[in-house]
Amino acid sequence: MPRTRSALPATGPVRLGPDSRAALRPAVVGIDTGFWQARRASNAYVSIPQGPALLEAAGNLHNLRLAAGTAVGEFQGAYPFVDTDVYKWLEAAAWQLAQAPGEDLAPGEDLAPDGDLASGEDLAPGGGQASGEDMTPNEDQTRDGDLAAEVGRIVALVAGAQQPDGYLNTWFQLVKGGERYKDLRWGHELYCAGHLIQAAVAHHRATGSGELLDVARKFADHVDSVFGPPGSGKPIDGIDGHPEVETALVELYRETGERRYLDLAAYFVDRYGHGLLGGEAYCQDRVPLREATNVEGHAVRQLYLLAAAADLATETGDAELRTAAERLWHAMTTTKAHLTGGLGAHHEEEDFGDPYELPNERAYCETCAAIASIQWSWRMALLTGEARYSDLIERTLFNGFLAGVSLDGERWLYVNPLQVRDGHTDPGGDQSARRTRWFRCACCPPNVMRLLASLEHYLASSDDNGLQIHQYVSGRYASDLAVIRSETDYPWHGTIALTVEETQVEPWTLSLRIPQWCREFRVRCGQETYEGPVADGWLRLERTWSPGDQVVLELSLEPRLTSADPRVDAVRGCVAIERGPLVYCLEGVDHPGGTLDDIVVDTTRPLAVKHRPDLLGGVTTVVAAGSRRHLPDAGWWPYAPVGESPDSPQQDGEHVELTAVPYYAWANREDGSMRVWLPTS
Amino acid sequence: MPRTRSALPATGPVRLGPDSRAALRPAVVGIDTGFWQARRASNAYVSIPQGPALLEAAGNLHNLRLAAGTAVGEFQGAYPFVDTDVYKWLEAAAWQLAQAPGEDLAPGEDLAPDGDLASGEDLAPGGGQASGEDMTPNEDQTRDGDLAAEVGRIVALVAGAQQPDGYLNTWFQLVKGGERYKDLRWGHELYCAGHLIQAAVAHHRATGSGELLDVARKFADHVDSVFGPPGSGKPIDGIDGHPEVETALVELYRETGERRYLDLAAYFVDRYGHGLLGGEAYCQDRVPLREATNVEGHAVRQLYLLAAAADLATETGDAELRTAAERLWHAMTTTKAHLTGGLGAHHEEEDFGDPYELPNERAYCETCAAIASIQWSWRMALLTGEARYSDLIERTLFNGFLAGVSLDGERWLYVNPLQVRDGHTDPGGDQSARRTRWFRCACCPPNVMRLLASLEHYLASSDDNGLQIHQYVSGRYASDLAVIRSETDYPWHGTIALTVEETQVEPWTLSLRIPQWCREFRVRCGQETYEGPVADGWLRLERTWSPGDQVVLELSLEPRLTSADPRVDAVRGCVAIERGPLVYCLEGVDHPGGTLDDIVVDTTRPLAVKHRPDLLGGVTTVVAAGSRRHLPDAGWWPYAPVGESPDSPQQDGEHVELTAVPYYAWANREDGSMRVWLPTS
Repeated sequence: MPRTRSALPATGPVRLGPDSRAALRPAVVGIDTGFWQARRASNAYVSIPQGPALLEAAGNLHNLRLAAGTAVGEFQGAYPFVDTDVYKWLEAAAWQLAQAPGEDLAPGEDLAPDGDLASGEDLAPGGGQASGEDMTPNEDQTRDGDLAAEVGRIVALVAGAQQPDGYLNTWFQLVKGGERYKDLRWGHELYCAGHLIQAAVAHHRATGSGELLDVARKFADHVDSVFGPPGSGKPIDGIDGHPEVETALVELYRETGERRYLDLAAYFVDRYGHGLLGGEAYCQDRVPLREATNVEGHAVRQLYLLAAAADLATETGDAELRTAAERLWHAMTTTKAHLTGGLGAHHEEEDFGDPYELPNERAYCETCAAIASIQWSWRMALLTGEARYSDLIERTLFNGFLAGVSLDGERWLYVNPLQVRDGHTDPGGDQSARRTRWFRCACCPPNVMRLLASLEHYLASSDDNGLQIHQYVSGRYASDLAVIRSETDYPWHGTIALTVEETQVEPWTLSLRIPQWCREFRVRCGQETYEGPVADGWLRLERTWSPGDQVVLELSLEPRLTSADPRVDAVRGCVAIERGPLVYCLEGVDHPGGTLDDIVVDTTRPLAVKHRPDLLGGVTTVVAAGSRRHLPDAGWWPYAPVGESPDSPQQDGEHVELTAVPYYAWANREDGSMRVWLPTS
Repeated sequence: MPRTRSALPATGPVRLGPDSRAALRPAVVGIDTGFWQARRASNAYVSIPQGPALLEAAGNLHNLRLAAGTAVGEFQGAYPFVDTDVYKWLEAAAWQLAQAPGEDLAPGEDLAPDGDLASGEDLAPGGGQASGEDMTPNEDQTRDGDLAAEVGRIVALVAGAQQPDGYLNTWFQLVKGGERYKDLRWGHELYCAGHLIQAAVAHHRATGSGELLDVARKFADHVDSVFGPPGSGKPIDGIDGHPEVETALVELYRETGERRYLDLAAYFVDRYGHGLLGGEAYCQDRVPLREATNVEGHAVRQLYLLAAAADLATETGDAELRTAAERLWHAMTTTKAHLTGGLGAHHEEEDFGDPYELPNERAYCETCAAIASIQWSWRMALLTGEARYSDLIERTLFNGFLAGVSLDGERWLYVNPLQVRDGHTDPGGDQSARRTRWFRCACCPPNVMRLLASLEHYLASSDDNGLQIHQYVSGRYASDLAVIRSETDYPWHGTIALTVEETQVEPWTLSLRIPQWCREFRVRCGQETYEGPVADGWLRLERTWSPGDQVVLELSLEPRLTSADPRVDAVRGCVAIERGPLVYCLEGVDHPGGTLDDIVVDTTRPLAVKHRPDLLGGVTTVVAAGSRRHLPDAGWWPYAPVGESPDSPQQDGEHVELTAVPYYAWANREDGSMRVWLPTS
């Protein structure tokens, strides 16, 4: 009905089935300017176009040709899941193709008004600081290439590599002599199938082409013919060591209407926790989800599995599974989430730690875990209608997720620590705290690409009574009931101006999420002003709307000092600086000498806000008062009886002005020290 | 000269060469009662006798038979260094054989006066809590077996497995088809040679038999024929991924007088840090020791290499190497040592972290690293004559090292964390925080055995002017100048009563180490009393001594609260309880509900000391006042603006009496929570 609707992106990664029990339906959003548009422009004009050359250089495409018999040589890469780098890139490219064409996505003066990243030149591939490195893509190939043509070319490579019965995994076809499903714990064959399916669904939704969907269905049908419970007549009762195919199969059901895929997903989800994979928490096999009391094991594995559980509860009405997902989400956020929304405390096994074990320098917080968390939370938001899920999404998007990609879209972080110490010795490799051009295990970069390219699908929802705005962006929110124009400089400014452009005649409810972090806000709607009530995170405005009606939401962005539950031992005696949805950090580069570990923040002095259009593409900094401790030489042993210790208060040193920058923007200037949590004494 | 000297153990693991530049020479000590004798009795009567059956069950002995061609079957074990478990056990058994025979080592009423571990029955193998488990050794075989016969049998197995040219490594002989030195980074072939050499030297010194020494020399000669610098005519210019052979070769030089072995060790030590192994810090290949500014990489690798550096500086007078070792020791203790003396911050790569990165729950602190630290520090103590090295040895022995073995001698810890959280989910395996019967990588248990069996060689030294007592035990200290009888209940009581039994006529100096932790002490010597001076850790008493002279050292063991350098972020706002050389911890089992993470210690109330003969073999506990925080439900997000947080002081909860037990004794009752560092608010 609304005029502009057709120009908005088509349905995204989650499309509910006809029998869905979700409280909310995804609504359509077009982001056209502002914070996220700048980040998406980097994605669209740098990250995604560079993908094919990087996949070529790393050998992923070569492997597909080998499997198709159209090339000769050795298999490239060290992992059985290298195909998924291709699939995730294809998914990202497909969502990109689904964007409304034209100027909306072009980098221009609206993107980052004061930043050095706003010009097309800076955003061009190869234009960044990393262009001299190993894997610099062929600029001509990507800059001038037509994305649709690239997608078509790579889809054909994938199709060509598929075996006649539908099976597809280049590692097992080429390295393992064609043996299949013999090593479910480490083989990742169904994990690969899952990413293929997700790419295919995106490709189908974005382009209408069934070419990749046919490949995916053929593989899914093959999997369905092989896997099933005892007594089903299927040869294997088994699950994959890395959950992923489950949520993909639900989406394939949604896309095709084939109930078989939903049933297969349900079967897989319920077979975890019964020892089929040896019973290890790492593989989500220690305890069934329905009985679990907290998240555990490999973080990404856990979160993809929980996304599938939410999907299944949504499509089947499985109340026990919903309760389990709600319970685990609460346990995770209460005891195992970093301030940034980052998840996963351990490098070893990439897993969740114990409750309240949330280290700073060794926070793992894999970028993929942040993405999986957003995927899971969005499904929970739709299923339950509750705002807290979008609270976590917001926190994760602006912090733990966005830090994973550099401002120029060319360098990545696999792990996202909350501290890099003075004198840090970096191990290099995938687990480096330094931004890297690509990884041996390159799961994160294309995962970031696919989320940024489909970001508009995680921002708003509708139900029969109205429209719910979960995340505030500049652009248009649309449902069957209305189209609303939004203008905002969020997160730099707290004012969001909403204008009704089209509306149905009957009354409906506009629901605005009041963020969990927000302690003061005001809504002006016509002549009225509201400061509440907020019911479970929502401020609801029910009325008869007319085109031109304005709603202005003002969220107070007073910077704040945050402390943690005392059980979070790692940050005892520390505070973090936050402003709005942004977590801030100190970087050595902004402080004399470049060192941070001797700094103390003075919590009695007010925080000041300073917008710095010149800095990091334009950021609002927070300035705090602090000092540098004098650290007397305590001899060779750094522990001493209380009172003798250099920790005594009289040791306070000279005043220093602390400049905090948004965490997402760290490590874009130099590889120095950084810390989110700051000692108070 | 002294009467009792012949009954004391023969020279131990470090025997200085004729041209040594060491300031001190190892002196001879006989431990006959008290704290360490009880621990050594567990080692002698449980741990060591169980070794052969455990090595048989794990397949290590089987592999030797396979290599000798006297058995058929598959290679057992997952690592190329499984032979070293045998070598380390042989070394332990050899030092055990070197003990004065008879009642000194027999468990009896003197060992642990009030403990349940003092009876022969409890100390017998199989008598402990673990006897029902997988790898229970054949009791008859070990209980009744003659250790010397077992050693002879296993030495013959080793000799039988050696190849005609001297090479010996069952993994490469059996699994790798005899290929050699192709994978120096991971192959551990020289590492294995090192442990073989150390075992052989011990065997030779203990028994006088040259059987194993011949095997070791043949292997060493083979290594010497293969490895050498460019231009030496040797086929390989290379080093092993795991340093160990270097310190062993120095000892082989000391044992045989063959300068070639010393030169080979010097060559190896200086080839680290030049990229021969790919340049990684993990393998000690990033930077040469002579240029390094801090310890880094895999902790055990680093520490064995530094032990060799100290050995070389001692034997060759290499001043630059000595300076490097001193510099690195200082950097390590200042910035990378846990309170327990434990070393190694990361599970991943088992390596040192950044400076002041000293986590509690994820402290790695491998038992082997504690042992390697003691080995290195002892060499530094002899080289320099400085007491601080023995300060670290004492701290490590009583805490980070001794925690590695259970009180009954049957269960082990590979990693030694300083905290186990409430709700801890244990990963199992080698990195478990739960005591384990044996490990897949079983490096630690026989390493503990060899140190405990040779412990008396790390306790005292002599020089031309006198005798230096580094560690206080009950027994006899002897040098060429004198024999001194020592009686003490240290570390439970601070009184050490020394009686001169024999002495030369000329004056000499008795040097007593005043521990770094000690803030108050008194020495009574005849009619005189001294409270100083202490010069660099030593109180020196120079006089003409007569048999019967008494010196009584009283060290104040007032329990104390310890805090850390403020850069140790992990323990900010916390204190630890210490008493004498012992670090204390809380265990859940001693506190109602079994939980610890809500506990706060009240630092304004005095600590009380309570000896508990019934507890843990008899320990002195420290009782502190504390409270349990009331932790209000903060919703789903554990972070909040300062002031809103449950961290506010008004949240203090009910009083609770805190019972702290020595860290070394933790995890001997149940697998619960534990913490060393206690929040103060």
